[in-house]
Amino acid sequence: MPTPEHMTEIVNRYLGAINAGNMEAVMSIYADNAKVEDPVGTEPKTGADILPFYQRAFAGGAKVELTGPPRVSARAAAFPFHAEIKSVDGAVTHIDVIDIFEFDDDGKVVKMTAHFGPGNVTRSEG
Amino acid sequence: MPTPEHMTEIVNRYLGAINAGNMEAVMSIYADNAKVEDPVGTEPKTGADILPFYQRAFAGGAKVELTGPPRVSARAAAFPFHAEIKSVDGAVTHIDVIDIFEFDDDGKVVKMTAHFGPGNVTRSEG
Repeated sequence: MPTPEHMTEIVNRYLGAINAGNMEAVMSIYADNAKVEDPVGTEPKTGADILPFYQRAFAGGAKVELTGPPRVSARAAAFPFHAEIKSVDGAVTHIDVIDIFEFDDDGKVVKMTAHFGPGNVTRSEG
Repeated sequence: MPTPEHMTEIVNRYLGAINAGNMEAVMSIYADNAKVEDPVGTEPKTGADILPFYQRAFAGGAKVELTGPPRVSARAAAFPFHAEIKSVDGAVTHIDVIDIFEFDDDGKVVKMTAHFGPGNVTRSEG
């Protein structure tokens, strides 16, 4: 069973990896059989499709920041954060998101679900 | 399909019903076949077990408040909130929670999942 301390550390490592633009470090949190449903309600990405998804999403760079404490239960962490995602044209997309990580026995994330919708997204020109 | 406006309204109605101590109003958001997994990882409550669960949880009264915007996607709303729950002995339990509501076609909540753990709970004496 993953500990609360481990799950919290993984949340912080994930956000730090996005801020550093290090998508290989993002991938290191995931189990080989992980599913990434981002946003919730879309077909989950699996396997070799996950890394290109992150590379596309954060091609222009991003700044992510927790907006409240991670809620860490027996096998899951839910955390609210704000993302500022830069486009190559200089525009910035602001998104309020809640991600859910579900963990396996080895402490790897087996399922990520990202909650947000059009009402959580604003854009500003760069 | 439920609209984003409807889902946001249901979140606000739910929190308002808890603050008002009106557990019948809480129940009105749920479909007949709803499941309530609170906290996540425990056996979901269903049917006639849901109302007594809320009555027990909030017997001493509670104050709940959003701590960020609801994240509303195609069929779900995720929302961060803070709860202060009073015990009959006067103690107050403070909890940081993230709830997920999943909606059916009629706009009723068919699944509620509450994310929190021991690290999200503090108690103060009344």
